[in-house]
Amino acid sequence: MKKLIGTTLAASLLLAGGAALAQVKPEDVIKFRKSVMTIQAWHMRPMAAMVKGQRPYDQDAFAHNAQVIGLTARMKAEAFAPGTDKAPDAETRAKPEIWTEPEKFKQALDRFQAEAAKLVEASKAGGLDAVRPAFGAVAKVCTACHDAFRTK
Amino acid sequence: MKKLIGTTLAASLLLAGGAALAQVKPEDVIKFRKSVMTIQAWHMRPMAAMVKGQRPYDQDAFAHNAQVIGLTARMKAEAFAPGTDKAPDAETRAKPEIWTEPEKFKQALDRFQAEAAKLVEASKAGGLDAVRPAFGAVAKVCTACHDAFRTK
Repeated sequence: MKKLIGTTLAASLLLAGGAALAQVKPEDVIKFRKSVMTIQAWHMRPMAAMVKGQRPYDQDAFAHNAQVIGLTARMKAEAFAPGTDKAPDAETRAKPEIWTEPEKFKQALDRFQAEAAKLVEASKAGGLDAVRPAFGAVAKVCTACHDAFRTK
Repeated sequence: MKKLIGTTLAASLLLAGGAALAQVKPEDVIKFRKSVMTIQAWHMRPMAAMVKGQRPYDQDAFAHNAQVIGLTARMKAEAFAPGTDKAPDAETRAKPEIWTEPEKFKQALDRFQAEAAKLVEASKAGGLDAVRPAFGAVAKVCTACHDAFRTK
């Protein structure tokens, strides 16, 4: 039954390009979502350092990093597609709650997208004082989601 | 001597956020570059399907995919930072020529960035006839670079 639900949901979820996700192997989706996480971490780190004053603020660099977060935030729904809680030869720290409580998880993704969009806007316009709270809000959403939906 | 050159170049290459890449472990850079490749392949695939007529053309979806290619194209220099030809516990198919012929490799990256930028522009403005040649040019650059700089 669970399997059936997963398959049905997967078939209705379309890739960015319009391919039904059911055509993609779960292990490929897991690889994709780990890649999204890696790229996000890579670009969060220098923003954190600037916000903390460990590195001089560089608006162009900050804006580029923010743009990466904004664009990759839109990849999350695909990256956690139904039916990808496990796969052959693929490790994942994703908790079952992602798929057993999809409304709660969707809310978390929506919050992330909203805060990421605000960070992108702030990074285009402002100095360090403008981006600091926006970055803090994004980082908070990351942590909250990891706490709720990722195993230690 | 080679090692010395690598270190010197790495120290002068800055991350998007301004961190000297020398502070980052080679295995982390290799993980990052594989993630960039995975995300690019993920977003090239649906564009290819649309261009080949295997899927209906959806301008919004195509433009999103193109934007991902455009933004991730800018990550390549970091992703192939000097000193990351190998690392403990990290496999890589990157050929030594990337670092022994850096000018040639830089030209390949520059071509990729230029064609990716054209694809982004074409995807904003046009229908399928406009994006088809731009997509073909990007795909060609991908293949040429893999042929020259990636082991089978």
